[in-house]
Amino acid sequence: MSSATQTETERAVLRANATFYRAFSEGDVEAMNAVWSTRSSVACLHPGMPLLVGREAVLASWREILGGRPGIPIRCQAPTTQVFGETAIVYCYEGPENEAAHLVATNVFVREDGAWRIVHHHAGPLSIPVAFRGTSQLMN
Amino acid sequence: MSSATQTETERAVLRANATFYRAFSEGDVEAMNAVWSTRSSVACLHPGMPLLVGREAVLASWREILGGRPGIPIRCQAPTTQVFGETAIVYCYEGPENEAAHLVATNVFVREDGAWRIVHHHAGPLSIPVAFRGTSQLMN
Repeated sequence: MSSATQTETERAVLRANATFYRAFSEGDVEAMNAVWSTRSSVACLHPGMPLLVGREAVLASWREILGGRPGIPIRCQAPTTQVFGETAIVYCYEGPENEAAHLVATNVFVREDGAWRIVHHHAGPLSIPVAFRGTSQLMN
Repeated sequence: MSSATQTETERAVLRANATFYRAFSEGDVEAMNAVWSTRSSVACLHPGMPLLVGREAVLASWREILGGRPGIPIRCQAPTTQVFGETAIVYCYEGPENEAAHLVATNVFVREDGAWRIVHHHAGPLSIPVAFRGTSQLMN
């Protein structure tokens, strides 16, 4: 894969990741449903919680988290990605807008008919919040 | 991919995951080095800690965790896997032998020359420890 193609692929993965966090922060259940894979088995690890497996259980958890709220004060910070063919991992930090991140996440995506869909989200707490300026620069 | 092949692939992934936890529990730095990919960029999220990227940083963290100890009282509990072509995710719980698990992990593997190598480990704390009997049955 050429370097240019790789970069384009990485951008597409990061756009899918941004779509996931937009749905999350806007409390948009429909958009959240759309970003999760319909073809592959999916799984999710919310902070502190046991494993959820399968689209029904995973999407039910998101409906519960997002339901009835106008939005969630969460922002994806410093996302980076590694692409392995038709699968990609995104690493990023999570925290309220303009505040230090208190969570770190692993998101796994697969490419289905040219579109990157999430198959796994794992977020866990940071012992010490991490502050960023912008989206990629580590401040402390 | 036939169902039989899928099962064989899943078994191979779970064997690689078991190798990772054997190196971890036995404090075997050499075996830990060998199970991580040498071809792909690797990353690691230890509980509560920020992201480590690159083989040098990741393996240095494992040398620090494992170094000088005869072994670590950790056991992989209830591992399951999802295979996406040449990439696979293993979900499992982590805890001391014969005790409830207090951590849950996402491990990502890629196939290199027929061997599954780990490219990402993310372990995070459980709010409520989860007890298992055997390796796959959830008890509470």
